Amino acid sequence: MKIDHVGVAVRSLDEAAAFYRRHLGLVETHREEVAAQKVKVAFLSDPADPSGTSVELLEPTSPDGAVAKFIAARGLGMHHLAFDAGRGAGSVASAMERMRAGGAPPLENAPRPGARGHQVCFFHPKHCAGVLVELVGG
Amino acid sequence: MKIDHVGVAVRSLDEAAAFYRRHLGLVETHREEVAAQKVKVAFLSDPADPSGTSVELLEPTSPDGAVAKFIAARGLGMHHLAFDAGRGAGSVASAMERMRAGGAPPLENAPRPGARGHQVCFFHPKHCAGVLVELVGG
Repeated sequence: MKIDHVGVAVRSLDEAAAFYRRHLGLVETHREEVAAQKVKVAFLSDPADPSGTSVELLEPTSPDGAVAKFIAARGLGMHHLAFDAGRGAGSVASAMERMRAGGAPPLENAPRPGARGHQVCFFHPKHCAGVLVELVGG
Repeated sequence: MKIDHVGVAVRSLDEAAAFYRRHLGLVETHREEVAAQKVKVAFLSDPADPSGTSVELLEPTSPDGAVAKFIAARGLGMHHLAFDAGRGAGSVASAMERMRAGGAPPLENAPRPGARGHQVCFFHPKHCAGVLVELVGG
């Protein structure tokens, strides 16, 4: 699976997006609030990158959300690494079950709605060589 | 600039590479020891990704290297985010100077040799919205 995006915990979407736009030439492709996850997110990528691999900025909207707790414990910075499970309806569910069967159990029992209308699921860093891994697709 | 790779601090190249190969279908494209940085590195990517955006695994070879100190302080996990400054001879130097002029000073005064025969330079997270950013090219 190709890398879909790198999730980065930030204090302010606007300030962080300005860094990636001004210094690295990325373009913002999407922004939304994911209320269930208590974050606002913005996706930025290089328009010349055929894969569209993105930076996903994550700004907490509440101190009791997972990203706010991550920032409180570890500071700002990279939060998760997301891989593209494909565009089919059951793509994330299939990939999730393959990983479970191979010894990497997901954090959730089933895919859940994520940003950009996709399905997502996450895997604990202890099963992923130290990285919080996300599958995204559908 | 497109994302060239995501650097991940690991305990063991072999164990971490096995995770990305087995569960996410990545293929190892390069491995070397970067003695000056006191790490062994392995690059893995999805052969179907036209951009070739990679995971760079970093295994410390000495407890006094920067990656060993990162692991001691923060644990395993994502370490830096690298952007592709292009293949020309002065590509990293030019991009570095543009970033310096724009208010993001590099950690080094000039590009230095990195893995895969490339030139690299790094920027402190305090200038990059919380992320250790690398430029790679040449």
